[in-house]
Amino acid sequence: MASSGPADLPRIRDQVGRALDDFLDRQRVLLSGIGGDMVACLDAITDLLAGGKRLRPAFCYWGWRAFGGQDCPQILAASAALELLHASALVHDDVMDGSDTRRGQPAVHRRFAARHDAESWRGPSEGFGAGAAILIGDLLLAWTDELFHASGLPQAALRHGQPVLDAMRTEVISGQYLDLAGQASGSTTVASALRVVVYKAAKYTVERPLHLGLALAEGASHQDPGHQDPGHQDPGHQDPGQARLAAAFTGYGIPLGVAFQLRDDILGMFGDPAQTGKPVSDDVREGKRTVLVALARERASRAEALAECELMIDKRVREALSAVQDAPITAQAMSALAELAVAATARCG
Amino acid sequence: MASSGPADLPRIRDQVGRALDDFLDRQRVLLSGIGGDMVACLDAITDLLAGGKRLRPAFCYWGWRAFGGQDCPQILAASAALELLHASALVHDDVMDGSDTRRGQPAVHRRFAARHDAESWRGPSEGFGAGAAILIGDLLLAWTDELFHASGLPQAALRHGQPVLDAMRTEVISGQYLDLAGQASGSTTVASALRVVVYKAAKYTVERPLHLGLALAEGASHQDPGHQDPGHQDPGHQDPGQARLAAAFTGYGIPLGVAFQLRDDILGMFGDPAQTGKPVSDDVREGKRTVLVALARERASRAEALAECELMIDKRVREALSAVQDAPITAQAMSALAELAVAATARCG
Repeated sequence: MASSGPADLPRIRDQVGRALDDFLDRQRVLLSGIGGDMVACLDAITDLLAGGKRLRPAFCYWGWRAFGGQDCPQILAASAALELLHASALVHDDVMDGSDTRRGQPAVHRRFAARHDAESWRGPSEGFGAGAAILIGDLLLAWTDELFHASGLPQAALRHGQPVLDAMRTEVISGQYLDLAGQASGSTTVASALRVVVYKAAKYTVERPLHLGLALAEGASHQDPGHQDPGHQDPGHQDPGQARLAAAFTGYGIPLGVAFQLRDDILGMFGDPAQTGKPVSDDVREGKRTVLVALARERASRAEALAECELMIDKRVREALSAVQDAPITAQAMSALAELAVAATARCG
Repeated sequence: MASSGPADLPRIRDQVGRALDDFLDRQRVLLSGIGGDMVACLDAITDLLAGGKRLRPAFCYWGWRAFGGQDCPQILAASAALELLHASALVHDDVMDGSDTRRGQPAVHRRFAARHDAESWRGPSEGFGAGAAILIGDLLLAWTDELFHASGLPQAALRHGQPVLDAMRTEVISGQYLDLAGQASGSTTVASALRVVVYKAAKYTVERPLHLGLALAEGASHQDPGHQDPGHQDPGHQDPGQARLAAAFTGYGIPLGVAFQLRDDILGMFGDPAQTGKPVSDDVREGKRTVLVALARERASRAEALAECELMIDKRVREALSAVQDAPITAQAMSALAELAVAATARCG
């Protein structure tokens, strides 16, 4: 995944990382002014954000390019906002799951609990760690919006993208709640696990980032500096090309996103902790109702479940690729989506 | 506070409540589509939002009016977004503090823990309750942004308001972290408690809502439908009238916001639970380092601390009122700010 293929991933990662660094530099000045203690929060955020694979920004970027948007720093900054959203979800997820590690480092709540211990502060260190992580996740969620609007994209673009960003946030948080409730109520069928995966992973990781890039590009195409055509001010308006492309992105995004999550399940159960950044079998130990765990329960053997899971991944990647093969996009965007499909489901994690 | 004075509070509350209801109705359709379980989240949010005093929306509305903005449903919808932000903070605060009640009802995490118990679900019910409340607070935080942008205010207004909303979110979350860290590290002086109050309450409850209304009105005043003056596209630009008014709002907002919090501290320690919605002395029991608790510690008697706290409130309300008496605003806005100062610090809670 380090080589520079048609999806331009190394450069996208580099520029998304730079947009995040610039944003955090500005926040550091603000937070230091509020109180010296805030620097500890910013340090934790900086460390966490350094580790992301930038998959969601890459899909957002290619949704933009596929509709004819030109490469520019502004779309990469807007895409980078999705890394803040994702980091927020991870920090809160780790509190809820009581996870110890994330991206090869202590989870944020553990980091702050350790600080509490080291300083011999009063009260239980776990409570302090959880509280700090809840607030840091909140900061990251609020900053998603801030970076999106400060990306420098034209107002018309942002206005068209906003409803997609709104849907994306509601869907991923809802998916997390359905997961939590399903785990508690004990519904552990493959079918119910797949329903959670659609909202918590598939729409959120692939479909919505592509839709966001598309909506931003469609909005930007209406932009005429110094003048806005009143006929194009309704963000609900879609031209036929956009509607067709949005449908193709759904056809690509949902199966690919499910395949991405299935790969993540496999890596969580069988992967190399040095690569995945989390201990093997955390999911099983925590009683997580992943599709793989549900399969293993239904099939009675891990090896059988693994084989079936690999088949499910293959089938979905092929389905994803066939959904975009007739889409009205450039050959370059087509090649990029093919590379991203491989990157998102690669065995190396 | 129920009478219709110059601040028009009963009507503002009514319309803010209606904007929230409309927003929640739209979300209910969406959430039901994602999964039937999501309705439980929406019900909890609806019940929580029904109880708010709408103080922040009222300040936002009067910031708008003071700069010459006309009364319209759009400014009330944008103001209502602040109720979602505040509800998010309350839900997460209650998880962190382990509070049992909020606005006279079980706190959200307790409500979901009770549901877990009632359904005899698996795992610890407290963990489920905390997880659900973290996610519900996240939804409310994400929806703040969504309602703000869906308020129907002109794009130019929203663009000018955005940086104020950004600052407000960062400040209140930072204030909460400073509070948490201060409580853990044990700094319990009146001075350090006051520093937390400035960010967690004063700027957040009074100054920033006024600034937000002002920035929205200033942006809207640049709006010329179908045409944007390129000279007015920089949201950082402030006209001299706005700068003067922003300074007056700071002079009014900071002392009044501190007085508001001091009143809240007093009500928390001595108030009527039927009116405050939370049990008396929760703050003391939880080892909260409120200004009043710090005063009680320094003064050695509750009665002395209470008397001094009342003096601090009086002094700050007078300071607040004198800060706006020469501000370039209408007589109606001036009277409204005077009424709001009383409403925010009234002994009845």
